[in-house]
Amino acid sequence: MNYRMLIQYDGTKYNGWQRQQSTDNTIQGKIEAVLSRIAGMPVEIYGAGRTDAGVHALGQVANVSLDLPLTATKLRDELNRWLPEDIGILEVTEAAPRFHSRLNAIGKVYCYRIATRPELHVFDRRQLYPFTAPLDVAAMRRAADCFVGEHDFQGFCTRKTKKSTVRRIDRIQIEEMTGELCITYQGSGFLYNMIRILTGTLIEVGTGQRSADSMKALLTSKKRADAGFTAPARGLTLLKVLY
Amino acid sequence: MNYRMLIQYDGTKYNGWQRQQSTDNTIQGKIEAVLSRIAGMPVEIYGAGRTDAGVHALGQVANVSLDLPLTATKLRDELNRWLPEDIGILEVTEAAPRFHSRLNAIGKVYCYRIATRPELHVFDRRQLYPFTAPLDVAAMRRAADCFVGEHDFQGFCTRKTKKSTVRRIDRIQIEEMTGELCITYQGSGFLYNMIRILTGTLIEVGTGQRSADSMKALLTSKKRADAGFTAPARGLTLLKVLY
Repeated sequence: MNYRMLIQYDGTKYNGWQRQQSTDNTIQGKIEAVLSRIAGMPVEIYGAGRTDAGVHALGQVANVSLDLPLTATKLRDELNRWLPEDIGILEVTEAAPRFHSRLNAIGKVYCYRIATRPELHVFDRRQLYPFTAPLDVAAMRRAADCFVGEHDFQGFCTRKTKKSTVRRIDRIQIEEMTGELCITYQGSGFLYNMIRILTGTLIEVGTGQRSADSMKALLTSKKRADAGFTAPARGLTLLKVLY
Repeated sequence: MNYRMLIQYDGTKYNGWQRQQSTDNTIQGKIEAVLSRIAGMPVEIYGAGRTDAGVHALGQVANVSLDLPLTATKLRDELNRWLPEDIGILEVTEAAPRFHSRLNAIGKVYCYRIATRPELHVFDRRQLYPFTAPLDVAAMRRAADCFVGEHDFQGFCTRKTKKSTVRRIDRIQIEEMTGELCITYQGSGFLYNMIRILTGTLIEVGTGQRSADSMKALLTSKKRADAGFTAPARGLTLLKVLY
């Protein structure tokens, strides 16, 4: 059986999604440990998005091939019984045998939340990055428009890679709410740290350190050092995986 | 000047509202420390509700008499600049000279949140008590009705006191939501641990350990041992103080 899981987590205390050899303090590691215990054998799961350390998810998707005498709902309940409180399996469904959460994904939606008045976010503070200097949101929107479309985002990636760094961004939406600025990114996929560097760059446009017009030069320079700072992980949440 | 403050806090890591001699790890202590620093002298504040260790607030009210060359808004900003992230001052206003947050309060509204499906509450888990056994909500509502009105709640109080233990409850509302049961209490005031013991008793009615009809006997027995368990602090939030 190929089970598909819809997963939420508060990533605050984890070393990200992807299991590491040196530590099991990862979301993937935690879920695999419980599944292995249920199955009585080592189990590997496949996640759609490899979120960084400290990044959260409202709609992560993962799949696992398992032969278990359990309905999908019963497997969900067993997982939630043993997983820590900051990881929740919202849904388990039976997927087509060839469904692969990452390879079949056609897009992802992330949001980056900035607390412009941190005192209004006592209860969701772990999901927001506090930044109280005034931000020119109109300039940020103009800058964001430059990133929409297909571009080589090599300068917005921390890790060196020989693979293609071309990605397509379908939408960057910046919403102002009371005490909060929320930036939503939808795209085909994102490079390592890409959304956090895009966000840092947009914040620097908001404070006037950069002009909105200078974004195109960043895309052509392809040097990480030319782009903005890497906004902290805590503000970033994987909202949805698109299929 | 008599400043009135509207305060939110995540009480998870604090020893409650009220300053203690042995520790300053209280909400009152934290706010007083910042105010004393701003004023350059020891400052005492008066809170409307003395919430227990681990209890939260969305609308705590406190007042403080201070001679400062600061507008109310500026004082709010200064407080938020120095207070920890889990305490937020939403509003500071200038109150009438004789306004006293506790003595002038005519009522308080609290809610107690129970996570019937904890996996749906990854992000607000610290504000809910996870309890997954099935609950007979209709029986809990019948039981709750017995507590509405003016009663001697001596049996629903942990601390011994020579003062009156008569209180008036105006409303107990039990709402079912997806994955959550929320019990709202409105009344003239509440004894030490009273809402948590009422909630524990209602939960025991919900599980069938007690009958809804047995509530009246609890009110007349006035013995703490006859009532239900003290529901954990984490589920309780002071929503509002009424004036």
